[in-house]
Amino acid sequence: MLTINQSTEIINKEIEEIALPANPSELYEPIRYILSLGGKRLRPAITLMTHSFYNDTLTEAIRPALAIEVFHNFTLMHDDMMDHSNMRRGKETVHIKWNNNIALLSGDAMLIAAYKLLEGINNNHLAEVFKTFNTTALEVCEGQQYDMNFEFRNDVNEAEYIEMIRLKTSVLIGCALKIGAITGGAEAHDKALLYDIGRDLGIGFQLQDDLLDAFGDPSVFGKKIGGDIIANKKTYLLIKSIERANPASAKEIQRLIQLKNADSEKIIDMLNIYRELNIEMLTEQKIDTYFDKSYKMIEKINAGEQAKINLIEFADILRKRKV
Amino acid sequence: MLTINQSTEIINKEIEEIALPANPSELYEPIRYILSLGGKRLRPAITLMTHSFYNDTLTEAIRPALAIEVFHNFTLMHDDMMDHSNMRRGKETVHIKWNNNIALLSGDAMLIAAYKLLEGINNNHLAEVFKTFNTTALEVCEGQQYDMNFEFRNDVNEAEYIEMIRLKTSVLIGCALKIGAITGGAEAHDKALLYDIGRDLGIGFQLQDDLLDAFGDPSVFGKKIGGDIIANKKTYLLIKSIERANPASAKEIQRLIQLKNADSEKIIDMLNIYRELNIEMLTEQKIDTYFDKSYKMIEKINAGEQAKINLIEFADILRKRKV
Repeated sequence: MLTINQSTEIINKEIEEIALPANPSELYEPIRYILSLGGKRLRPAITLMTHSFYNDTLTEAIRPALAIEVFHNFTLMHDDMMDHSNMRRGKETVHIKWNNNIALLSGDAMLIAAYKLLEGINNNHLAEVFKTFNTTALEVCEGQQYDMNFEFRNDVNEAEYIEMIRLKTSVLIGCALKIGAITGGAEAHDKALLYDIGRDLGIGFQLQDDLLDAFGDPSVFGKKIGGDIIANKKTYLLIKSIERANPASAKEIQRLIQLKNADSEKIIDMLNIYRELNIEMLTEQKIDTYFDKSYKMIEKINAGEQAKINLIEFADILRKRKV
Repeated sequence: MLTINQSTEIINKEIEEIALPANPSELYEPIRYILSLGGKRLRPAITLMTHSFYNDTLTEAIRPALAIEVFHNFTLMHDDMMDHSNMRRGKETVHIKWNNNIALLSGDAMLIAAYKLLEGINNNHLAEVFKTFNTTALEVCEGQQYDMNFEFRNDVNEAEYIEMIRLKTSVLIGCALKIGAITGGAEAHDKALLYDIGRDLGIGFQLQDDLLDAFGDPSVFGKKIGGDIIANKKTYLLIKSIERANPASAKEIQRLIQLKNADSEKIIDMLNIYRELNIEMLTEQKIDTYFDKSYKMIEKINAGEQAKINLIEFADILRKRKV
């Protein structure tokens, strides 16, 4: 049975060895590039880890785990293009380094390459993995669409926001846990439970992301603090602020949102609003709700005590991350 | 056993009934739109037809057949965006009617929706259908990439061109025939042969397309004649002309290619070159080569005489088309 760190180590090696054709290079070079940028690779690692709870022979889970990571990076390639983002993990995004057509077609090929990595799954497991993967992939697209729609709305409420991050971020984490359980041969009870654990951890993970963007430690956090504030992103923090604002702070929030040529002053002023309305604590509480639900579900997994310990260790990494 | 017309009738009804979620509408409305534009729908029809050669119960082939059509239309949606095409089947293309982000994300969702249509295939057939579909889908992307690369080259030779259209157009027709054979339960011999038949018919089909663009009957052909000439597209006709040109006509071809603000005069002048170099006849001969290969392979199919008749009828439709 693997820990999350042991799984990550295996995944890091396997990603280096993913075989892609050489030509046409315009199609495959961007795929190699974005996969080489790194990232924590927690999604494929948890697929491998949950598989190992039920089956010590890892072979069947390796390629599906990579499929999850390739799919995730495909969404980054196309999302960066839609969001006009120039940088990803400290490097140029694909549509900047190459061009839009290459990011578009290479992304398409990457999505298909993710599916190709599901080939070779045991016939007893293929249909279930395939269905889980399809449903999740479509939901991730829906989440991205809602996220883009929210840009043009100032009345997004908490429930809509949670539903958006459920789709855009958390179902893929649920899917990653579940696919490992399927290939490992888990019972239906554990498969469903692991999916729900991943989904709730994923929501907590994204709320944490919102929080770090505003209150993270600039010396540790990879990106610049306040990016979401500058972009008027409808984060949990902004939505709760609008919900809780008194007339004076409501007016101030509207002023800040409408600022053209926003600079660091906007960040400082918005952070003051967040502090005044106790948003950091509120968000921490919300995150705890989702993590607590996950910890309770982890207790019910029927794969022995060590599996629970390994899952809690993984959840703790997500909860305590500063990056 | 179905004829191609009977299959097409069933497919036309089934496409109208494809179930897609209502929301987010920005994601699913463009998919409904492009599928409603029609087209000949020969690809899904041949999947259903070849399935019917081996199995009278059509159920298992319906959704895979639709998957092929949805995939094909996904490629059109993204290709139109890459090629900056404004019109498709007499209507605005998706990135024009909506915008680039919607065409991008909706296309992604459409590719996943195509895969979703492969769910429900019998466990004995799923792995093989899935592998065939994946390989083909990736090859279609490769073909599109080579086609875009050819725009910037004036030294594309015949072999490179045939390889490009094999990937971009013909493997999907091979795949359509083969998937019907797989779900129908055909032997390996027929599955491989049907794939090759589709591939060769597909190459003939694309060469025919090149020819119609230059020499089609304007009163019958759906698009304006000479579009490829105006766009300097590296068609079989242009490649053969460059290959066969004497110094005078070579100079004239270069002059025409370099023309800015090309108009109908360019079309007339290029058609004169094609006539002078006997390109129409040469292309017809090449088309015949591929069709003749297909007819010979059709003779070897082990599904009874009626199956051969139905396949020949399908091939004849492709060969004699004017649209």
